[in-house]
Amino acid sequence: MIRIDGVKVAKEVKEKLREETNQIVNSGRRAPHLTAILVGLDGASQTYVASKEKDCHEIGFGSEVIRMPETTTESELLELIEKINQSETTDGLIVQLPLPKHISEKKVTDAISPLKDVDGFTPANFGLVTRGEGGYIPATPFGILKLLEAYKIETKGKHVVVLGRSNIVGRPMSILLSQASPTGNATVTLCHSKTENLEFYTKHADIVVVAIGISEFLKGNMLKEGATVIDVGITRVSDSSNPRGYVLKGDADYASLEGVCYAATPVPGGVGPMTRTGLMLNTLEAYKKKFNLD
Amino acid sequence: MIRIDGVKVAKEVKEKLREETNQIVNSGRRAPHLTAILVGLDGASQTYVASKEKDCHEIGFGSEVIRMPETTTESELLELIEKINQSETTDGLIVQLPLPKHISEKKVTDAISPLKDVDGFTPANFGLVTRGEGGYIPATPFGILKLLEAYKIETKGKHVVVLGRSNIVGRPMSILLSQASPTGNATVTLCHSKTENLEFYTKHADIVVVAIGISEFLKGNMLKEGATVIDVGITRVSDSSNPRGYVLKGDADYASLEGVCYAATPVPGGVGPMTRTGLMLNTLEAYKKKFNLD
Repeated sequence: MIRIDGVKVAKEVKEKLREETNQIVNSGRRAPHLTAILVGLDGASQTYVASKEKDCHEIGFGSEVIRMPETTTESELLELIEKINQSETTDGLIVQLPLPKHISEKKVTDAISPLKDVDGFTPANFGLVTRGEGGYIPATPFGILKLLEAYKIETKGKHVVVLGRSNIVGRPMSILLSQASPTGNATVTLCHSKTENLEFYTKHADIVVVAIGISEFLKGNMLKEGATVIDVGITRVSDSSNPRGYVLKGDADYASLEGVCYAATPVPGGVGPMTRTGLMLNTLEAYKKKFNLD
Repeated sequence: MIRIDGVKVAKEVKEKLREETNQIVNSGRRAPHLTAILVGLDGASQTYVASKEKDCHEIGFGSEVIRMPETTTESELLELIEKINQSETTDGLIVQLPLPKHISEKKVTDAISPLKDVDGFTPANFGLVTRGEGGYIPATPFGILKLLEAYKIETKGKHVVVLGRSNIVGRPMSILLSQASPTGNATVTLCHSKTENLEFYTKHADIVVVAIGISEFLKGNMLKEGATVIDVGITRVSDSSNPRGYVLKGDADYASLEGVCYAATPVPGGVGPMTRTGLMLNTLEAYKKKFNLD
């Protein structure tokens, strides 16, 4: 079974982005620029934002993090977003979630200009992606498409079963893979908690994308021979034998796929490392749109 | 086999709308109001707009048609839309398509305020519908949901196969039926021109929605016993024995469904008559949103 290596592919994607950014800057233009807004001091959010800054730095993008105190009001934040929406020097704008409870995440996200919404969170952007009319593909789905591409896993005419209908992963994945596009043209079945006789679908699937948040749910005996599994799950399962006290598990039982599947993503090291590349790809796209490049 | 009667259900939906509008007006409020813009003199468009006016009149909505000459410029039209977007007295706004060739339909449609976009054509509206966050359901999908509801055809846990991935019908249908909602919760497979072994899917389906524009494509022998067929196709097929010189055919071979299916929509008289009700339902919803009713 082929182990789909997200760390390796993420590195390759970043290397390509770095080369393209180099060419842009060498041609005398300014570099693409990503702005992140971080409200409060949430530990995980600090880490996420720091790693996005690191990505930007490695690729050669400009980046900045605007840190706002926990006490920031919604209207202050909306005002800041409007300013950055208008800014000539920022191409992509992200607001790190979660936000403090007194601020509506929906209002804030919706306020980001669709042209700069490189996280792909606004309704207008989601509508464009759904209709295949451009728009920024959200991070995790974008990462998955890049993995399939890198490992030359054909989607056209194949039966893809997506487990989980979240707006973050399952829903957009089901849409993207069934669109008339080079990374689409699959026949997609979207399964979820109300699906009856799930194995009927998984046993017929050429590709299964699993994003339900139940560790090791998908077993090899639920699949047909030669299937590919894309595992989006990542759950901490306590494990006293591990020095950290837990291990990370995916939604698929990786060991059980061996001998059945053609290829699968491990957890960690599969889809996870790819999600950060989507943001960078979208930032470059936003830049190109702005200057009518390509 | 139950013949799903769109004419009858459309009448019932309109009657309910009429009663609700009556109550609103009797409570001293103004009636909901739909504005249609018609550019040029396209014959079919004139007919469509006239029938929408008639629906409004029967229900008790206010309505107006703004007729613009064929020579209207894009910026004149955009200016008019902006004026109506701001208007306090219009709840729903539709621009009848097609537009003259010198005007971008995309630009015009996108200019309609999402709050008044009762056709459900803007990207933001499509994004909201896709994510299950409100938004106006486009006319044909809305009509189909109402038909399933009226005939108490359960979707929860059922396997729905949608044939055709258009942004007008197939795509939104596949999304709506798989959402966590009273008219959703189905396991949906979206099939299209690149699908291999189509009968594998149709033979397993509890409900088939067919919207591919190929007359009498879907036959009874491609279905399992007890299935329900929703036929969105409507094609003129020439027929010299008919005084009009043609007959209207659906995407399903209706006669062949008899003895196999539980229920099916005829063509004409099934989905067609329902499409106009969606616009009216959305107009009332736009009105209620505006005044925070319900």
